[in-house]
Amino acid sequence: MTTSALLTDLYQLTMLQAYFDQGMNDTAVFEFFVRKLPEKRNFLMAAGLEQVIDYLEGLRFTDDELAWLASSDRFRAEFVDSLGDLRFTGEVWAMPEGTIFFPNEPILRVTAPLREAQLVETRIINLLQFQTLVASKAARVCLAAPGKVLADFGLRRAHGAEAGLLSARASFIAGFDGTSNMLAGMRWGVPLFGTMAHSFIQTHDDELVAFEHFARSHPRGTTLLIDTYDTETAAQALIPLQRQLSGEGISIQAVRIDSGDLGEHARRVRAILDSGGARDIKIFASGNLDEYAVQALLDAGAPIDGFGVGTRMNTSADHPYFDCAYKLQEYASVARRKRSEGKATWPGRKQVFRRFDETGDGRRMTGDTLSVEIDIVEGIPLLGRVMSGGRRMAPSPSLAEVREQARRQLASLPPSLRCLDAAPPYAVDVSAPLRELARRVDLRRC
Amino acid sequence: MTTSALLTDLYQLTMLQAYFDQGMNDTAVFEFFVRKLPEKRNFLMAAGLEQVIDYLEGLRFTDDELAWLASSDRFRAEFVDSLGDLRFTGEVWAMPEGTIFFPNEPILRVTAPLREAQLVETRIINLLQFQTLVASKAARVCLAAPGKVLADFGLRRAHGAEAGLLSARASFIAGFDGTSNMLAGMRWGVPLFGTMAHSFIQTHDDELVAFEHFARSHPRGTTLLIDTYDTETAAQALIPLQRQLSGEGISIQAVRIDSGDLGEHARRVRAILDSGGARDIKIFASGNLDEYAVQALLDAGAPIDGFGVGTRMNTSADHPYFDCAYKLQEYASVARRKRSEGKATWPGRKQVFRRFDETGDGRRMTGDTLSVEIDIVEGIPLLGRVMSGGRRMAPSPSLAEVREQARRQLASLPPSLRCLDAAPPYAVDVSAPLRELARRVDLRRC
Repeated sequence: MTTSALLTDLYQLTMLQAYFDQGMNDTAVFEFFVRKLPEKRNFLMAAGLEQVIDYLEGLRFTDDELAWLASSDRFRAEFVDSLGDLRFTGEVWAMPEGTIFFPNEPILRVTAPLREAQLVETRIINLLQFQTLVASKAARVCLAAPGKVLADFGLRRAHGAEAGLLSARASFIAGFDGTSNMLAGMRWGVPLFGTMAHSFIQTHDDELVAFEHFARSHPRGTTLLIDTYDTETAAQALIPLQRQLSGEGISIQAVRIDSGDLGEHARRVRAILDSGGARDIKIFASGNLDEYAVQALLDAGAPIDGFGVGTRMNTSADHPYFDCAYKLQEYASVARRKRSEGKATWPGRKQVFRRFDETGDGRRMTGDTLSVEIDIVEGIPLLGRVMSGGRRMAPSPSLAEVREQARRQLASLPPSLRCLDAAPPYAVDVSAPLRELARRVDLRRC
Repeated sequence: MTTSALLTDLYQLTMLQAYFDQGMNDTAVFEFFVRKLPEKRNFLMAAGLEQVIDYLEGLRFTDDELAWLASSDRFRAEFVDSLGDLRFTGEVWAMPEGTIFFPNEPILRVTAPLREAQLVETRIINLLQFQTLVASKAARVCLAAPGKVLADFGLRRAHGAEAGLLSARASFIAGFDGTSNMLAGMRWGVPLFGTMAHSFIQTHDDELVAFEHFARSHPRGTTLLIDTYDTETAAQALIPLQRQLSGEGISIQAVRIDSGDLGEHARRVRAILDSGGARDIKIFASGNLDEYAVQALLDAGAPIDGFGVGTRMNTSADHPYFDCAYKLQEYASVARRKRSEGKATWPGRKQVFRRFDETGDGRRMTGDTLSVEIDIVEGIPLLGRVMSGGRRMAPSPSLAEVREQARRQLASLPPSLRCLDAAPPYAVDVSAPLRELARRVDLRRC
């Protein structure tokens, strides 16, 4: 992941030059939040903090970048020189990755000298919104397919390499079992899933020979793609092959169906396999899947054991972005807020407090309160300090720990919020002290 | 941009191992194409070829990657060893970036030893689909706003860093005037655009003081953001400021409006500026814009001179992916095609021939023919050879040249295809020789 300080918008640097000229560099507080839930969504899942921390720790302009800035004729030499020393020295509070959150709740707060806190806006949004987008979508797929194997197959149609990598990570956090993305496997240890492509079948003159070649090269278990020509014919043909290979210690674990009516094909293939004595061969489905398609297949009783979910999750196709922002909430010890039409924000340093009920099957979220940081409110504060003096406070949790956090969070979700359609919204109260602060900020008009 | 050979799907490598075990590595031909137009789209614009060529030229497994593969217990040692020497040695034919194309027309053809041609599938799709997606969307914004300044403001909500960079590039190719993305400016010389953020206003106790500070730091011209508190009040207030600064040689070029009813605010602000003698201050609008919003504003006569278009273009929000594929069309000199339900492809090495009419105002596209490569068909062949022996045939065109190619292509678009709603489709014929080849392939059933 790039930590280039130049991966930012021009206006960050033009503002920085104006701040430099005015000697303005007091402490600023910015918070990142999502303004509203997309249609049909009942919750969001925070992800991307780890990459934000890496970015902030590594933030610097390279010599090449400084030389380019100096040559651009847009910035003064003294200002460009000052950028050479720029590092992130601030403090960050955040919700742990995997935490469920709701609109207007900050999931990250940056407290730092104004220029540092401003410069990093673009990349912080770029990193947080995307992983949160994918984790939030992937969590819905997990809710739709309890007990099923779910693999991220979306690298090819993700928006570039980084999107492919980060969506493998975010979907794994949300509860996916793994990804097809090799680099995500190497970088983060995300378990790898894969089958074969139609081209493998096509390079052979005979589909069954292709199956055999593939199985022999992967004797400990393979998944064969059976829809290149005729799905049911292929299912029938592989039964004697499986019997023969099984005698040699070679295992065919599953078949994949990638086209046509997935549910109908799965039923027919299941019947063929079962009547052929191949009850242990699983059925894996892929192709244009999302949480709705998966739920519809399972509701209809399709005998599918696992799903490859790609493009629609990796691009969050029904809502490929959030209405989200990283907004100044305080500068030089004075709380501030933007009041643009339809875009007003709650001012000041905030905290989110969450209340729970203990139920027979564990803890259940019952409501949140958005308040000023120093308020004493019933519930557990969700934002904790993760960076101080520009460094992380503690080693990052492992991806397995983050995934466990997400699992516990999903388990504590009120049942009404677990469905794929819009439910009555979860209760997020705005505390009296925060309302009072907003009123005073508006009276001051700045 | 990463050229890691490991940025691929697991199944590419499991297939490669099976090919290795069978000694299969004859010449394979794969083509990339889009299966169908998204709703309301009349054409597509090819982009991303340059990054594909860079990737293919740089393709290799690093020692770390090979060591990780060897340790993964999934691949045989001889096979992993063979990957150490793997380079792309093939040939690539492609449509130039900026070319307009239609469903089922290949925009790229790879001819290479099977293992190389297969391994690169994932990243080729990942690079080509995304830039083509953004260029195709951005071209529509350009058609909706002739003569207006258009700037890409989408980095923050693009899906990661690479998506932000590539969408700055792709939208510039399609006709945008520039981007806010600094790294795209440094890397490719894309002109930079920027204004100021609401936070800049908020860090000052007085909006007008903020305006003045910013203008003084950028005396050759600035764009001031006027909607933080009350848009029209801010417009009124900056007139005397402009007069004063103008006397000192400091220029205020434009104001930006980012919230509320952009058309209504623009009309009121234009009236305020004009009656205050500030006719030369331009109005720039941003916020949730796409081709539809831009066209609606201009159709309603909103006095807006330029638009910052971000998220909805960078994510191609209405259609965040294409139904596209990279499919095997020939192996070992035998044409092949997939026949999966709803996903059948045209087999063999293909070429696209385009016919034009000369009209009073230049060349106009009149129809395409999709045929076998060696066919002699009326029209200009759109795919040309860009790589041979794993190396580019000639230095890449400059981004300005690519942009000029896109401009000429858009100018030659039939008027009916220029509108934002679905028009009767452009004529793409499939030639008799190609139909005959498909028939023969199906008879052979492989």
